[in-house]
Amino acid sequence: MKNTLMRWKLPLICFIWQLAMIILFGVFIRYDEESDAHWIVTKISHNISSDIENDFYFRYPIFQDVHVMIFVGFGFLMTFLKRYGFGSVGFNFLIASFSLQWALLMQGWFHSLDFSDGKIKIGVESLINADFCAASVLISFGGVLGKVSPVQLLIMSLFEVTLYAVNEFILLNVLGAKDAGGSMVIHVFGAYFGLTITRILYRPNLDQKKNESVYHSDLFSMVGTLYLWMFWPSFNSAISNHGDAQHRGAINTYCSLAASVLTTIAISSVFEKKGKINMVHVQNATLAGGVALGTAAEMMLTPYGSLIVGTISGTVSTLGFIFLSPFLEKYLKIQDTCGIHNLHALPGVIGAIVGAVTAAAATEGVYSKEGLVVAFGFKDGFADRTPSVQGGYQAAALCVTLLLSVGGGTIVGFILKLPFWGDPSDENCFEDEVYWEVPGEEEAALYSIHSVNNPSTKSATNGEVQP
Amino acid sequence: MKNTLMRWKLPLICFIWQLAMIILFGVFIRYDEESDAHWIVTKISHNISSDIENDFYFRYPIFQDVHVMIFVGFGFLMTFLKRYGFGSVGFNFLIASFSLQWALLMQGWFHSLDFSDGKIKIGVESLINADFCAASVLISFGGVLGKVSPVQLLIMSLFEVTLYAVNEFILLNVLGAKDAGGSMVIHVFGAYFGLTITRILYRPNLDQKKNESVYHSDLFSMVGTLYLWMFWPSFNSAISNHGDAQHRGAINTYCSLAASVLTTIAISSVFEKKGKINMVHVQNATLAGGVALGTAAEMMLTPYGSLIVGTISGTVSTLGFIFLSPFLEKYLKIQDTCGIHNLHALPGVIGAIVGAVTAAAATEGVYSKEGLVVAFGFKDGFADRTPSVQGGYQAAALCVTLLLSVGGGTIVGFILKLPFWGDPSDENCFEDEVYWEVPGEEEAALYSIHSVNNPSTKSATNGEVQP
Amino acid sequence: MKNTLMRWKLPLICFIWQLAMIILFGVFIRYDEESDAHWIVTKISHNISSDIENDFYFRYPIFQDVHVMIFVGFGFLMTFLKRYGFGSVGFNFLIASFSLQWALLMQGWFHSLDFSDGKIKIGVESLINADFCAASVLISFGGVLGKVSPVQLLIMSLFEVTLYAVNEFILLNVLGAKDAGGSMVIHVFGAYFGLTITRILYRPNLDQKKNESVYHSDLFSMVGTLYLWMFWPSFNSAISNHGDAQHRGAINTYCSLAASVLTTIAISSVFEKKGKINMVHVQNATLAGGVALGTAAEMMLTPYGSLIVGTISGTVSTLGFIFLSPFLEKYLKIQDTCGIHNLHALPGVIGAIVGAVTAAAATEGVYSKEGLVVAFGFKDGFADRTPSVQGGYQAAALCVTLLLSVGGGTIVGFILKLPFWGDPSDENCFEDEVYWEVPGEEEAALYSIHSVNNPSTKSATNGEVQP
Repeated sequence: MKNTLMRWKLPLICFIWQLAMIILFGVFIRYDEESDAHWIVTKISHNISSDIENDFYFRYPIFQDVHVMIFVGFGFLMTFLKRYGFGSVGFNFLIASFSLQWALLMQGWFHSLDFSDGKIKIGVESLINADFCAASVLISFGGVLGKVSPVQLLIMSLFEVTLYAVNEFILLNVLGAKDAGGSMVIHVFGAYFGLTITRILYRPNLDQKKNESVYHSDLFSMVGTLYLWMFWPSFNSAISNHGDAQHRGAINTYCSLAASVLTTIAISSVFEKKGKINMVHVQNATLAGGVALGTAAEMMLTPYGSLIVGTISGTVSTLGFIFLSPFLEKYLKIQDTCGIHNLHALPGVIGAIVGAVTAAAATEGVYSKEGLVVAFGFKDGFADRTPSVQGGYQAAALCVTLLLSVGGGTIVGFILKLPFWGDPSDENCFEDEVYWEVPGEEEAALYSIHSVNNPSTKSATNGEVQP
Repeated sequence: MKNTLMRWKLPLICFIWQLAMIILFGVFIRYDEESDAHWIVTKISHNISSDIENDFYFRYPIFQDVHVMIFVGFGFLMTFLKRYGFGSVGFNFLIASFSLQWALLMQGWFHSLDFSDGKIKIGVESLINADFCAASVLISFGGVLGKVSPVQLLIMSLFEVTLYAVNEFILLNVLGAKDAGGSMVIHVFGAYFGLTITRILYRPNLDQKKNESVYHSDLFSMVGTLYLWMFWPSFNSAISNHGDAQHRGAINTYCSLAASVLTTIAISSVFEKKGKINMVHVQNATLAGGVALGTAAEMMLTPYGSLIVGTISGTVSTLGFIFLSPFLEKYLKIQDTCGIHNLHALPGVIGAIVGAVTAAAATEGVYSKEGLVVAFGFKDGFADRTPSVQGGYQAAALCVTLLLSVGGGTIVGFILKLPFWGDPSDENCFEDEVYWEVPGEEEAALYSIHSVNNPSTKSATNGEVQP
Repeated sequence: MKNTLMRWKLPLICFIWQLAMIILFGVFIRYDEESDAHWIVTKISHNISSDIENDFYFRYPIFQDVHVMIFVGFGFLMTFLKRYGFGSVGFNFLIASFSLQWALLMQGWFHSLDFSDGKIKIGVESLINADFCAASVLISFGGVLGKVSPVQLLIMSLFEVTLYAVNEFILLNVLGAKDAGGSMVIHVFGAYFGLTITRILYRPNLDQKKNESVYHSDLFSMVGTLYLWMFWPSFNSAISNHGDAQHRGAINTYCSLAASVLTTIAISSVFEKKGKINMVHVQNATLAGGVALGTAAEMMLTPYGSLIVGTISGTVSTLGFIFLSPFLEKYLKIQDTCGIHNLHALPGVIGAIVGAVTAAAATEGVYSKEGLVVAFGFKDGFADRTPSVQGGYQAAALCVTLLLSVGGGTIVGFILKLPFWGDPSDENCFEDEVYWEVPGEEEAALYSIHSVNNPSTKSATNGEVQP
């Protein structure tokens, strides 16, 4: 039996890291000019006519959609396990709350450090970016779900956020790639990082009996699925340019996701026994259309292009669950609890390719001369780029992401393999009781249904289930 | 035993229809000028000063509220059945995802076809309208819930969306009726279409034992109820004119819904045994105030007018559940699983009447001269209308809707009655296992509660429930 | 056995009060100029260039977030009890729906009565304020949860809303205190009002066995927790000034809440047995950071200041659950079902103090000269205030709130103690069956899992659990 006692380990890491956040925030983080009380002065000096021009009103409703995806979406999606609901929602809550603080710092240093005073200036877009970074960590969490301790998760988060910011900086600032919804930055990165870790933490004697759902846990999971599905148009348009880009990003993602639902259910019915639909596919592969538009959603992909991407990615993702996951587990020893390879890795790679092709195919006829410059940021250092060159850089960005995620995951995997992080023994994986106080009397609850009306059933039921 | 095998039937219909959507989208659907990359050019040519004037910022947050109502609201509202949670949420997901694609086309052909290039131009308002059309299909779904196959549901959706667009065109474009929240277009149409179908599909030997809830399924259902209730102010103001009309639509609906809650609980306590409150009423009739404001919400109904409508419709709807539903089932052979007659048909008719009266009573004093023209669209072909004439057209719109919904439902009902669509036998109605892979080990889950702390209970419990 | 029959009592109170609302709304409540059809005229006369300047577009998305907190957030947070889910969600629904109507009137009379015509003019900000007032009632509900009848709850709501409006008027209009997110007005007031009532209604023989959770009820409760947590940035910025104040309020609350999560889990693991995390703490104390920023969120607290407040309040709240609640119950006879003292009272007091200190420390350097005037409303009657004087008034506001809440709670407590309101007997507390029709066949549902695949188990299971 392993020592899974979290007292002192978990509290210490939480307190010390939170203290570090306070100090680093104190040294580095300030309000940007749209959230600072000087805004009233800024408005005059910048000749801004109305408070509605504050970025808050362009992005805050969309930020809240993304926020729901991070905490309810990811959190409840993972509650499908019959005895890991507390861990799914609770650890999701914990590591996302840490990751977004650390991301505000890491992304700030790389992207929005004001060199005049050495401060990071944050606003609503910073919050969205921090949530995006947390999403990447939560994707990796899906791969190791049920097999690690909260301490391991926090350590993973620390490293993953750091590397995420590095990768994001290389992609967006150095390569000038576009990836507004994060097919590469978020999904490919988070998935391969997590898959590499779960490979290194391979457990040959894992008890797969607890790695299953019950009826109501599947319904809780659908709460997560639906919130991810409904708000993905917000996710893919959250940090796009104001105006048509955000508008288009939402429309494209809406179309793509709808197509994924039909193909997911179709493939599920074809390959599952007796032609029945498998809830695991509905919970996951219906979302593939959103992942696969992470790069191209803001581009002029056209609505039918979005349908095609949704159709293909929903199909590929479902086939992945049916054929690829068992293969990965058996031959590559990758125990991928939530199937992140099918939901995030495969559609993410599709999304990166779609983005590269769409960028390369852009023309002034489709975008207008000014629109092309704005859409792809062909100015400043990238002023002499053509769409086809941009396509090449998009492809390069995918390669960099694959490299960094697998490389980083390898290092972090071996760190997490150290024996003192309190991970559960094989037979206690997928089991809340290891780290949570779990109410132990569901039978008593069942019994009490009859207690008022039929007191006579009391002793019988009680006698049976609690002998 | 009927043949309920979905393999090939369901996958083929999903794939072929999705393929058809791609082709039709490719031929017809393009971005409108606010979501096209040419927006930067449009802004200059139309002298638009800011990106915030893009319709996206007026309607997108409200669109997302509506989107939640469609997928979580309707989906979870129907999970009250103890063994039909997968079907409720899952088929809701499937048919809504198909319906909104088909609605973008059908509504586009009727409402926003650009005759200069033969293309349908879509933007955020198109997405809202497509979701509205899907709502109508989901209302009908509530009537046949648990008694049909997914193939039947898809066929129903195909026809219902088509007829919805025809009815909508007649009401809004030909008759010039106002119906921003769809009391007639969505609720009356969807309800009587579905009720007619369920009448034609009458099952004399239906097993009503499975048509019941359990404790936690009632709580899941309340998730759906509350999201519908909270976001109904968005639903009723989603496609109203910018400014005061949207603002007023939200306020009126907010007031009306609050009143419905009090009267629903009052009536429930009066008529149910021992004065106890019935959860079915709370799950449904509390929403009647929203349905009943579907036409008049954007009008100058006044807040107290809204309270009156909410009071009456909550009362009528609850009484419908108590007295009318058993009557309809016994004498008219209408087996209305979710009680859509009480939640959508009755309050929808009330809403149509309230709308007609409110329109007829409009004056320039209340609306201002310009306000009256804007509010009721008294321009172009309708420039010479007076409020009282408008009231007459509103009433005519209700009649047309009733006619088309019952007529269309009759035809579609007989199509769905054909014997090869894979519907379940009477004893398998309201049962997920027919079409879904269902995890079969809830007892095992119960057992595992004790596995760590009380290993001694293992064999006993195991022996009992899995003999 | 007490008489808990609700027939006539509950329906009569619902109907009479709803009727009173209609009459009072009819006499007093009208649309404000942004929701009235004359808006088209107002725009011209006020030289407003665009409909987007309508307050609806500044506040409606945030209003919807608050609305979700009231109905899903508070409602589901309280479903943690194993047999009180209907009462938690359902009574929450009932009393919030009444409270917001009554609050529109009470707050209208005190704050937005138009003396030119004697009417209250309402718009989207009025709806937010009404929801805020309902929140205060729901906090008190958390203290008495499971121990009172719906009639008692409605009576409590009537008095509490009234006193809330009085207290709010004294704080905001007389003392000129700032409290945009309601640390004092909502949280301290609601908590001490409810705690005083629960003290007066003390039940020495309360059966604490039903005051417990089961596995899935804890997950339902997490739905409530997460919606409160995610949308708290909206809550604290909902009625702040347009522009930087709303923007800053959201950022500060976001940071504070993230910090609370880490410290809550840390403290829980330190003090709970075997170092395991307690779900009760995660469900509640993670929200303390939001409560504690209710006053200062819109101020220039800085992000690291927010982290400090979140860290401290999360810690204090969790310690309150562990050490203070048992003490209060044992020695002060305060039976606080949901622990509102730990979640609302303590963090609310912290928030009031943080607000007073932050206000007192404000400088023109930090806010700019104009910013300071706008942020603290140093104009009209308060034009000669300095920040340090403002700090004093903030402290006075806390004292007034404490006084009024305990005083009002005492009176209302004795009113609720009258013997004819239909409260449950001690052994029926925390039990839905007293006031709700509860489906009685969960075992039957379990059985039916096997009915299709393994018909052989039918008789055995059936025989066992329904002898």
